[in-house]
Amino acid sequence: MDESRIDRQFEFFREIDKEKFIGRQTYLTDAKRKENDAEHAWHMAIMTILLSEYSNEKIDVLKTVTMLLLHDLVEIDAGDTYAYDEEGKKTQRTRELAAADRIFGLLPEDQGEKLRALWDEFEEGETAEAKFAHGMDHIQPLMLNAATEGKSWKEHGIRLSQVLGRNQNTAEGSEILWEYAYQKFIAPNVEKGRLKRD
Amino acid sequence: MDESRIDRQFEFFREIDKEKFIGRQTYLTDAKRKENDAEHAWHMAIMTILLSEYSNEKIDVLKTVTMLLLHDLVEIDAGDTYAYDEEGKKTQRTRELAAADRIFGLLPEDQGEKLRALWDEFEEGETAEAKFAHGMDHIQPLMLNAATEGKSWKEHGIRLSQVLGRNQNTAEGSEILWEYAYQKFIAPNVEKGRLKRD
Repeated sequence: MDESRIDRQFEFFREIDKEKFIGRQTYLTDAKRKENDAEHAWHMAIMTILLSEYSNEKIDVLKTVTMLLLHDLVEIDAGDTYAYDEEGKKTQRTRELAAADRIFGLLPEDQGEKLRALWDEFEEGETAEAKFAHGMDHIQPLMLNAATEGKSWKEHGIRLSQVLGRNQNTAEGSEILWEYAYQKFIAPNVEKGRLKRD
Repeated sequence: MDESRIDRQFEFFREIDKEKFIGRQTYLTDAKRKENDAEHAWHMAIMTILLSEYSNEKIDVLKTVTMLLLHDLVEIDAGDTYAYDEEGKKTQRTRELAAADRIFGLLPEDQGEKLRALWDEFEEGETAEAKFAHGMDHIQPLMLNAATEGKSWKEHGIRLSQVLGRNQNTAEGSEILWEYAYQKFIAPNVEKGRLKRD
């Protein structure tokens, strides 16, 4: 047993437990409590396994799931930047890069480099897996917002143009899922005034 | 787009959001809040991706991760049965079978059958993937219990023999990880009186 290797792996596992404390703005389906990053990642991982059949391009499911499971770990240091927080987004990249250095650096070098490369790939958003993962990252909260009658949108006074801007690349992962999300989660909530028309 | 297929998939995704409300007895590393099933599954999925190198037998990582992501969904109906609740365990199997019928039955038939088969495989615990998944399911809370100075063990007055009984098959997934967990998470906490000697 290479004890120092396992020690580093478990040091990482204890550290990432903190992702469970990072709150998001999306309400769970009971509309009472907001979701945290770990719950969000778990939900998207299962969604990816069952929805990969709709990806525009064939994807490596394990790679996409891994990307989604770890993509928010940087928020342990950098915090969650709300999708519509324009001020916070200005410093988001710098804060998250430093976090990636520290957190992936806890692992044995080979594994740290592999996960860091996956996180970079997600951030760049160019590969089929990264595009699909970004689609999940946007569609999962749309689903929850719709399920809670737009509670978070209403609290923040979100406009349709903001949601469409946020989702400008969602169809690059899956045209079918973007069309479905638009029809089922967005359009009806504009009709009902839960998302403001511009 | 086969809308009824996607409708069933999203009905399932909304339903499984409830896993985030199912509490466990393990405290998170801050020793303040207890973990829920979705957080637990997320944590073990990442652990599996990084620890599969220690599996006694070669495992299919995506299959093992999928098994872990969904193995507690039945608790949405059946509730969490604490590892050391001997009364609750008597009815656990019946409650969970009914839950599996209902919850996996929400999905399109092909996907429901596939996930149900994976859950059955986990429950039977015979394959390499099921054995490794059970190992993770036991080692992850050992790690958190050790990180919180045995808080949950102390609250429930847990004895060493109960932990060893619970972990009688953990080495079947990974002898290396069981040895590590015993040395690092169990033995020191017996020494410190956080786990009662029998």
